[in-house]
Amino acid sequence: MAERRDFMALALEEAEKAGARGEVPIGAVITHEGSVIASAGNRTRELNDPTAHAEVLAIRAACEKNGSERLNGAHLYVTLEPCAMCAAAISFARIERLYYGAADPKGGGVDHGGRFFDQDTCHHRPDVYSGFSETRAAALLRDFFNERR
Amino acid sequence: MAERRDFMALALEEAEKAGARGEVPIGAVITHEGSVIASAGNRTRELNDPTAHAEVLAIRAACEKNGSERLNGAHLYVTLEPCAMCAAAISFARIERLYYGAADPKGGGVDHGGRFFDQDTCHHRPDVYSGFSETRAAALLRDFFNERR
Repeated sequence: MAERRDFMALALEEAEKAGARGEVPIGAVITHEGSVIASAGNRTRELNDPTAHAEVLAIRAACEKNGSERLNGAHLYVTLEPCAMCAAAISFARIERLYYGAADPKGGGVDHGGRFFDQDTCHHRPDVYSGFSETRAAALLRDFFNERR
Repeated sequence: MAERRDFMALALEEAEKAGARGEVPIGAVITHEGSVIASAGNRTRELNDPTAHAEVLAIRAACEKNGSERLNGAHLYVTLEPCAMCAAAISFARIERLYYGAADPKGGGVDHGGRFFDQDTCHHRPDVYSGFSETRAAALLRDFFNERR
């Protein structure tokens, strides 16, 4: 349990760093056998890449490191409920467990919208745990958007 | 109409090239004001990247070229119904029109599964046209998987 909190704390640090870069503050960490193998924050603006969500960047980095398009046994920690794009990428990468912070009723694709993992077009479903550090994760996003209004 | 067929023929060429590389044969082309701005075939194996679907690679290339994470007014041609990941990426990139070839009941995310564009978590919905060159697009995939069995 302490370990999970530590990894989510790292994801929150990535989210904060993303916010400081002017990106929507969302961060992700991927672990395997208790060690961090990749971490990333959103970089959609910097990279001019609408797919550069924290989860996708972390998955791509971990896969590159592993020399495989699959991350069997890996755990992904992300500060916000993944969108449909990221949920599908998590499934394709065969991530074993997904821990997410705040729920995202407006854009989430795990427990909202198309609920990707619940569809019969989803061929690998991670175990999903939610609500980790959700208050802090949600506050980061709220403050970011309030500042920009 | 002739133009649409030409662009889908280019997408089919990208699919064939992907198959020749040992990748699942799916290809995509992005156009803007009648000109091709990016084209790609699947490269998930070559790049060890589960997100390297034809659509995602084409979107990333077009965005890099345009220096923007949005492709307003662009049209995307793809040989197979996009999955949930690609559908969401198409929406994030603000693609105006999506033309796809064969339907994908097993993995599609537009007219199957979570039907991303029909969800209230989808904030930009392209116009969707399907069935272009679907026989050829489907045959490419069928032959590819039959050869590997």
